[in-house]
Amino acid sequence: MNAREPPLFSRAAIIGLGLMGGSLGMAMRASGTAATVSGYDPEDSATAAAVAAGAVDEAAASVTACVTNADLVVLATPVLAMRQLLAEMAPMLDPGGLVTDLGSTKAQVMAWARAELPGGARFVGGHPMCGSERSGIGAASAALFRGAVWCITPDEGADAAAIAQLSELIQRVGARPAVVDAVRHDAAVARVSHLPLLAAAALVLAAAKGDQWRFDLTLGASGFRDTTRLASGSPLMARDICLTNAGPITTALDAYIETLQSLRTLITEKNGPGLLARFAAAREARDHWQHEHAPGQ
Amino acid sequence: MNAREPPLFSRAAIIGLGLMGGSLGMAMRASGTAATVSGYDPEDSATAAAVAAGAVDEAAASVTACVTNADLVVLATPVLAMRQLLAEMAPMLDPGGLVTDLGSTKAQVMAWARAELPGGARFVGGHPMCGSERSGIGAASAALFRGAVWCITPDEGADAAAIAQLSELIQRVGARPAVVDAVRHDAAVARVSHLPLLAAAALVLAAAKGDQWRFDLTLGASGFRDTTRLASGSPLMARDICLTNAGPITTALDAYIETLQSLRTLITEKNGPGLLARFAAAREARDHWQHEHAPGQ
Repeated sequence: MNAREPPLFSRAAIIGLGLMGGSLGMAMRASGTAATVSGYDPEDSATAAAVAAGAVDEAAASVTACVTNADLVVLATPVLAMRQLLAEMAPMLDPGGLVTDLGSTKAQVMAWARAELPGGARFVGGHPMCGSERSGIGAASAALFRGAVWCITPDEGADAAAIAQLSELIQRVGARPAVVDAVRHDAAVARVSHLPLLAAAALVLAAAKGDQWRFDLTLGASGFRDTTRLASGSPLMARDICLTNAGPITTALDAYIETLQSLRTLITEKNGPGLLARFAAAREARDHWQHEHAPGQ
Repeated sequence: MNAREPPLFSRAAIIGLGLMGGSLGMAMRASGTAATVSGYDPEDSATAAAVAAGAVDEAAASVTACVTNADLVVLATPVLAMRQLLAEMAPMLDPGGLVTDLGSTKAQVMAWARAELPGGARFVGGHPMCGSERSGIGAASAALFRGAVWCITPDEGADAAAIAQLSELIQRVGARPAVVDAVRHDAAVARVSHLPLLAAAALVLAAAKGDQWRFDLTLGASGFRDTTRLASGSPLMARDICLTNAGPITTALDAYIETLQSLRTLITEKNGPGLLARFAAAREARDHWQHEHAPGQ
C-alpha cells in the first residue's frame, strides 16, 4: 500500500457492506486505490454503519445509483444474491469499467456474468482467501487482505488489461493475485475451505446431540474452539457456498467420510501401527502446509 | 497461585517431561506447590532440557529413583506407557502419598491403577483440559493450566483426603477442579476433544489426497489453519487416545459421519432452507459454547 501512487480508479462501487465489502472499502481508502468509494447495502443500517466506520466515502441509495459512473464495481454479497444484482446493474455499467466479485465460489458466478452482462462488460471473477467467523462491518478491517492469496478467475478471452487492473488493485490492498481457472478454483476451495466449514458445523451439531451435551461442552478446550470456529460464521454464506459449489463439495465430503471410515476401522481393529502411520502422515502434511502456506497468526 | 502458602507436597515426582509434565513442573515450582520437584523421562535429552528450562529441581536417573520418598507422583506420559510405569513404581510408592496422572482417557488408566497398585495406594485420576498442538518441553509453560477445567476421576471409595489434595494442587496451578466419573469423562472427551482430533487429521489427509493437492493447499487460509491445527500434535498421543478410548470414540465418529451424511443429502437435494437451518443451529450452539465455556483466546 502506497498512498502516494495516483488512484487506480476514480469511482469504486461496492455492493454489500459486510465483513468483506467493508474491509475492501477500508483497504482501498487507506491505500488511495480509488478517488471515491461508494457503497450500497440492502440493509440501511449496514450502509450507515459502513459510513460511520469509514469504509466508504458515500452511501448510495440504490444499486444503480451506486454503480453509475463507477469504473470499478465489486460484488461483495453472498453468492446467491449476485445473479440478480448483475442483471439489475447491467444497463448502468460503464463499458470501460471493471466488474469483479469477492464470492467464495467462482464457476457459477462466471456463468451468471456471461448471461447477465452486456457483451462489452469487463467482468473478471475474484476470491480473496481470507475472512473471519465474525461477520458484518463490525469485524471489517483494512488489514484483512494483507498477505492473503486472492484468486482471479478470468473467462477465456477476458480482457488482459482488466486482469492486470484487478491484479494491481489486489496488490494495492496488500494481497497476492493468483490467476486460476474457475473450475480448478472451486475444486480446490471445496477441499481447503468449504469442507473445513462443513466439518466444523458437523462437529458442533454432533457434540450438541448427545444425551449429556450440556456437560460434554463444559470440557471443550482450545482444540474444540479452533476446530469449530468456522461454525460461528454466517449461515447464509455457508448455504450459498453449498448451493453454488455442490459438485466439488460432495466429492470432497465423500473423500472426507471415506478417510474417517478408514480411521474408524483402524480403531476398531486396535491397529496401533496403522493409526500411528496415519497420524504421522497427517502431521507431516499439516506441518508442511504450515511452513509453506499458512497465513500469519 | 500464591507462593506464600506453604508447599502442599515435600517432594513431587513427574514421570514424563514433555508439554504436559514440563508445564506442570513449571507451574508447581512457580506456585511453590512442592518443596522439590523431581523429574524423569526415558529420553535423557528430554530430562536435560527440562532441567535447563527450570521445569524440575532435579533430574532422576530412573522411575524408581524419581518416585522414592515422593508424596506426589504424577504420570505425564502417553497413556499406553502408564500400565508398565505403575507396575514398576508400585513397590517404591509412599503408602501415604498421592498418585495421579494427566492422561486424556480415564477408564483404562483407572483399571490399570486398580490392577497394578497395592491396596493402600492413593490413586486419583486426572485430566487437565488444555494442551497445544506443539509437543515437548519447548512448548511447556507455567501458564498452560490457567483457567482450564481439570477433571478428577476418583474410583468408588477413593480417599476423600486424596481427592481434596489433588483439588488443591489443581487450584494452586490456576486450574478449576471438576470431579467426574471416568466413564462419563471418556464419553464427553470423545465428543469434544478426541473427535475434533480425528476430524482435523482426516481433513488434512483428505486434502492431501487429491490429484492437485499441492495447488489446493496453496489456497488454505485461516479456516484451514484452525480446523487442522490438532493434526500437528503428537501422533503417539493420538494413537494412545484412540486405543484406550475406542468405544466412545467410535460412537462419536458414527454420530459425526451421520451428521456429515445428512448435510451431504441437503446439498445434493439443493435444500436451501434445510442447509440454512442446520448452519444456524450450529452457529447458535457454537456461540453459546463460546460465551459460556471457551478458554481464553
